Amino acid sequence: MSDPIRVALLGCGTVGGEVVRLLGEQSVELAARVGAPVELVGVAVRRPHKHPEVPAELLTADASGLVNRPDVDVVVEVIGGIDPARGLLLDALKAGRGVVTANKALLAEDGVTLAEAADASGADLYYEASVAGAIPLLRPLRESLAGDKINRVAGIVNGTTNFILSAMASSGTGYHEALDEATELGYAEADPSADVDGFDAQAKAAILATLAFHTRVSAADVYCEGISAVTSADIAAAEAVGCTVKLLAICERVPGEPESVSARVYPAMVPLGHPLASVDGAYNAVFVEAEAAGQLMFYGQGAGGAPTASAIMGDLVAVARNRVAGGRGPRESAAAGLPIRPMGATPTRYHISLEVDDRAGVLATIAGLFAQQGVSIATVRQDVTPRDAGARGARLVIVTHLAPDAALAATVAALGELDEVFGVDRVLRVENLGRPVTALGVT
Amino acid sequence: MSDPIRVALLGCGTVGGEVVRLLGEQSVELAARVGAPVELVGVAVRRPHKHPEVPAELLTADASGLVNRPDVDVVVEVIGGIDPARGLLLDALKAGRGVVTANKALLAEDGVTLAEAADASGADLYYEASVAGAIPLLRPLRESLAGDKINRVAGIVNGTTNFILSAMASSGTGYHEALDEATELGYAEADPSADVDGFDAQAKAAILATLAFHTRVSAADVYCEGISAVTSADIAAAEAVGCTVKLLAICERVPGEPESVSARVYPAMVPLGHPLASVDGAYNAVFVEAEAAGQLMFYGQGAGGAPTASAIMGDLVAVARNRVAGGRGPRESAAAGLPIRPMGATPTRYHISLEVDDRAGVLATIAGLFAQQGVSIATVRQDVTPRDAGARGARLVIVTHLAPDAALAATVAALGELDEVFGVDRVLRVENLGRPVTALGVT
Repeated sequence: MSDPIRVALLGCGTVGGEVVRLLGEQSVELAARVGAPVELVGVAVRRPHKHPEVPAELLTADASGLVNRPDVDVVVEVIGGIDPARGLLLDALKAGRGVVTANKALLAEDGVTLAEAADASGADLYYEASVAGAIPLLRPLRESLAGDKINRVAGIVNGTTNFILSAMASSGTGYHEALDEATELGYAEADPSADVDGFDAQAKAAILATLAFHTRVSAADVYCEGISAVTSADIAAAEAVGCTVKLLAICERVPGEPESVSARVYPAMVPLGHPLASVDGAYNAVFVEAEAAGQLMFYGQGAGGAPTASAIMGDLVAVARNRVAGGRGPRESAAAGLPIRPMGATPTRYHISLEVDDRAGVLATIAGLFAQQGVSIATVRQDVTPRDAGARGARLVIVTHLAPDAALAATVAALGELDEVFGVDRVLRVENLGRPVTALGVT
Repeated sequence: MSDPIRVALLGCGTVGGEVVRLLGEQSVELAARVGAPVELVGVAVRRPHKHPEVPAELLTADASGLVNRPDVDVVVEVIGGIDPARGLLLDALKAGRGVVTANKALLAEDGVTLAEAADASGADLYYEASVAGAIPLLRPLRESLAGDKINRVAGIVNGTTNFILSAMASSGTGYHEALDEATELGYAEADPSADVDGFDAQAKAAILATLAFHTRVSAADVYCEGISAVTSADIAAAEAVGCTVKLLAICERVPGEPESVSARVYPAMVPLGHPLASVDGAYNAVFVEAEAAGQLMFYGQGAGGAPTASAIMGDLVAVARNRVAGGRGPRESAAAGLPIRPMGATPTRYHISLEVDDRAGVLATIAGLFAQQGVSIATVRQDVTPRDAGARGARLVIVTHLAPDAALAATVAALGELDEVFGVDRVLRVENLGRPVTALGVT
């Protein structure tokens, strides 16, 4: 058995506490799997006296001092946020220590700097816990599919919003009631913005796109819409066309010269028969399409102390093993360097609900406007469900074929200008999961 | 860039042909990911003149000569079967060459010998493609969950039988019609025994149990029943209790002193709300329960040339990277060495359908017999669906609580002896996926 692998833990909240517990409970198994004992040598927290669960001699308020202790082999970071986490991890990587982190915000904002520091010193940088909690997803993308070509990664990567949308779909309640329920049950934070405005999913999309397409994608490259505008009428409209509404993080390789990468987050209609449609409550699931492997899906708990700690422990075992072997794990490659496709040029499909004047010739006018914008209609349907007392005309539901998002948005704006259209009520994108991405000849 | 990694391919059928294609098409990306060119140096096949798709100078009929060429770094084996694959892979491992194999039969029969040879020479032995085709499953089990404790791995690991059971469930056709359809569509082989009798799933269960519980489990340790006795009446009976029928490979850690491992394959009733229930057609899916990670599911194509080749390529990249780095990947650990629990002592639940004399006191007699056998009844229901013209009495459907399988089997046998029971028609096990395994105090 080799010398112990010495671990410093930064942060000791729900996830950190579970890591401390697992390091203790699994110490015999860990040593067997790593080939060396795995020893916790320090835990940096803001208020050491508030952590009776950790042996007092391990606690310190001096995170920087802990990271720079020369006997530390691996730094596990569960503080979250950009600073001071960035500086601490850069220090650790520069000193050649392995890093295991769950910090999606930092990775999505400045993963490049971290990866470069890791490459420069030959240190390991692992972050399975940053996306989809316990679900083994980054390792399969990075390693299992390393000899394949990934075309799309699309999934439900935020449990809070999935809980809310599932509650709206199953009980017909509105967004605010469902959010209140999520808050009461502890699925939503007091300030739910990071979840409901899509920022959490946006960071995860950046990490997934970077890995899947060997191209550096940061959060700022990811188009993002949250779920706060989703109404129970949207969900009913989705059901009427055999769909459900999910907040999706979508990363696609778009063919063309050159190939490009689209990364985006928004509430989308997903056909009920698709495996993602039945992922309910706070669960996460990610659907992967690769050239040879075909369609894969990974499903599990996306958050929570124990699940996130499980992912961290898997990474810690890998980094510790690499150190025992004197090597380092496969590193992330940004070799492809594909351009990021702007949202306006990204092929999407719209579901549009319109209130129109109920007389002859109106449909011809509307269809003409679509044609003028170069947008092709897949289905048009007059809604026969009972309408509000105030409704003035007929309701048309139009689903388009794939078109550049900007052309679709322009079509919706132009529809609003028509005298025959009393109102454009609802617009949601419909996702073509499982079908090939097309470039649509857009530059 | 390092010296090329030189690959020998044994076998060139559907999967091997895809491997040759991917090695060619992805050569630039592979070199970038591995840090060295990956070069195919030979392909051993029985009849070299039958492979116009492979450059003639690479083809040879002398597999042993190819494996023993001193310049070969990695041997990829897709011949299948026990011999001559075993001898060839042992030669390769003894000479320190990395091995990537899809050979589930060999791994399930004699994985121990292969693993020992790999350990002795420090060579890599990877076999992601042996279970669930393209689905990254073994790497997550071995690496991502390395710091967690796995309690159950249960899944649909044979696409042929899942296609047949799905067809029976969706169209109400019988087993033989569904098998004919599967054969016509190419999902079943001319001799379907390996699939329908469960042997393919049995081998995969052995591989999964070995990895999940760090205990060597061979095919002979896995209890196995196939699907040829499943009738459309069984499927209807499952639906009546909110279930569907799936051929499951189940690997469980059973608590007790000592802990033990149960590995088994049989058609089982799965509640419709469970994610495995909606896995239809030729798809595979594996459900994993771990202490910290909670419930995970992996879904995708379990067979086919391209999906299987994708898994092989992922392994090949890992082995090649390890060679470039001068190390080796994490090896399988059999350190836990848990005893294998015999099927009779394994806790299961039965769904039993009985035709009984329709008079007072019969239920009391039957309930008394269950009590005598120490088996607890969960639900009992009189079936009110129309019965065959020849039916003599009432039909009772009984679902038990968990009990040792032998006690359940003894109960069924004893029921058949009762005068009040005209016939015991259908017995299927009901799986408790997602619920804790209990030991039931059985020794």
